[in-house]
Amino acid sequence: MYGAGDVRVEKVPDPKIQESSDALLRVTRACICGSDLWPYKKMKPSREGNRMGHEFIGVIEDVGKDVRSVKKGDLVVVPFAWSDGTCEFCRKGLQTSCLHGGFWGGTELDGGQGEAVRIPQADGTVVKLPVGPDDEIMPGLLTLSDVMGTGHHAALCAQVGPGKIAAVVGDGAVGLCGVIAAKRLGAEQVIMLGRHPDRIKLAKQFGATDIVSERGEEAVEKVLSLTGGLGAHSVLECVGTDASTATAIGIARPGGAVGRVGVPQDEEVPEGRTAFFRNVTIAGGPAPARAYIEELMPDVLEGDIQPGKVFDRVTGLDGVPEGYRAMNDREAIKVMIEV
Amino acid sequence: MYGAGDVRVEKVPDPKIQESSDALLRVTRACICGSDLWPYKKMKPSREGNRMGHEFIGVIEDVGKDVRSVKKGDLVVVPFAWSDGTCEFCRKGLQTSCLHGGFWGGTELDGGQGEAVRIPQADGTVVKLPVGPDDEIMPGLLTLSDVMGTGHHAALCAQVGPGKIAAVVGDGAVGLCGVIAAKRLGAEQVIMLGRHPDRIKLAKQFGATDIVSERGEEAVEKVLSLTGGLGAHSVLECVGTDASTATAIGIARPGGAVGRVGVPQDEEVPEGRTAFFRNVTIAGGPAPARAYIEELMPDVLEGDIQPGKVFDRVTGLDGVPEGYRAMNDREAIKVMIEV
Repeated sequence: MYGAGDVRVEKVPDPKIQESSDALLRVTRACICGSDLWPYKKMKPSREGNRMGHEFIGVIEDVGKDVRSVKKGDLVVVPFAWSDGTCEFCRKGLQTSCLHGGFWGGTELDGGQGEAVRIPQADGTVVKLPVGPDDEIMPGLLTLSDVMGTGHHAALCAQVGPGKIAAVVGDGAVGLCGVIAAKRLGAEQVIMLGRHPDRIKLAKQFGATDIVSERGEEAVEKVLSLTGGLGAHSVLECVGTDASTATAIGIARPGGAVGRVGVPQDEEVPEGRTAFFRNVTIAGGPAPARAYIEELMPDVLEGDIQPGKVFDRVTGLDGVPEGYRAMNDREAIKVMIEV
Repeated sequence: MYGAGDVRVEKVPDPKIQESSDALLRVTRACICGSDLWPYKKMKPSREGNRMGHEFIGVIEDVGKDVRSVKKGDLVVVPFAWSDGTCEFCRKGLQTSCLHGGFWGGTELDGGQGEAVRIPQADGTVVKLPVGPDDEIMPGLLTLSDVMGTGHHAALCAQVGPGKIAAVVGDGAVGLCGVIAAKRLGAEQVIMLGRHPDRIKLAKQFGATDIVSERGEEAVEKVLSLTGGLGAHSVLECVGTDASTATAIGIARPGGAVGRVGVPQDEEVPEGRTAFFRNVTIAGGPAPARAYIEELMPDVLEGDIQPGKVFDRVTGLDGVPEGYRAMNDREAIKVMIEV
């Protein structure tokens, strides 16, 4: 990506093993993330450009001499952050704060929207898949890189539990996975705030019990009317704007929690005083997708959850620029790339 | 209080039982709260004035016909919010959001800084004390109205637990009670951010292991250096300004939590993006002091905790205006009123 709206598919040198903890991966599937759309909307022109993509599955082609958990030929899923798996934060399951980890792409590292990636800290980062690269479950497994883990993180941070009322702000792929996660964690009522018919349809398939298509103060009133005037116990904030965050706090009941996973576009949290006077907890951040893969994968493999349905368009690498456009124009929910 | 800096002691009509759930209380002890200083600094002149005071102990003089839990002659402690004890939020232990409750003083209700108070929802609100009105433990019991419960709430919201590192922002009476609470809940290291020698001395008595007297970015650096570069697991925000909240978020480690109990002076939470990228939880609000009285009272009665030490000045009702001045000028930590 060379700037807002400027995505190019180019040849770059093949990556090589640099550290003994590296692995080399040949990418087989990747996708475009809602968070990729922030630079697609706002990035200043850059001569160097940023490599893009942080959700991918692939086959290990080579490993450094210290790598123990995977070998050439293994099919693995790669979370959107790489991490050593051993530091203070990794041990606590917060791999997105790994002391020796980081994020894909940019100018220093490869991105998942490409043919090959050098994986630093391979032992702490990748998770082996028990199926072949063309298994029909592949879209579902690909969501474990990010969106399904991120929806799950939102639900955990929002303290979803059996019998609770959850509300999901945002009908993008993460919000839709948030519906799956809230349902999976036992929410009794799942209210989706969204207005796009195709997304609403999917939200209902995933377990949404109520749809609120209003916005702002009207959305708050509607959610209150659906919750006996009290608000939702658990609100999943899956957008990241000031307006969506204010709505999320506005629909949380006293003592409730907002789990934020939409990347905040502003420094401050709006409605902080409102949250305070209602004892509403504001939690969340970049999901430690790595921490959740073992828990979520069996449900994906069994078909108990079907997050792969968020992919409503498939393309090759050449179609990536068009994929960005389609997602940005909200023609597609999420675009999968078959490499 | 008739405006900023304008506190007067005046005769008002005696309160009367109005509802069958009311009790009438003759106040024996009360105090001035750090939160009373916000209007003392900022209140616009008012002809009607606001009755003040929300922390008090007293003797029941009369009860409405539906009151079951107390009778004439009982000595009780009164939390800073009144509550029915039966609604959705009271049942969850969040009495400060009671659907039929409220707060003392203002223009409609009596304040605790006076001789007598009509107590609405007496059964849900007051807690009987097992000692006489002049027992030497009275200052400690008085803190159960607010500051000790508020410090405890900050510690709970900051997820203090055994072996964790806690940091307390603010060396007022609530911050000092926060030190007590953090220690009581098992924190291994308790870092107090404060700069007043008398308060630092008390903080150390209460269990603070480290004192940081720097402010802003320097305070953040100092706390990082005291915590292996990682920050505190649990931060108790006991001030409520933008600067103190930014410091609190700045010293929290990834995956940590900030428990806010200082009344926020601004709408927005600063450093919200920083909190997000570190998965720092922001929790807290008005403490349900009522919920904590049963748990904390035995420790006060046994002398295991000594929050009554935050009172470093005692006055009669006539001395209340001077008490406000002394607290506002930081000559006194907290002023107790013997009525």
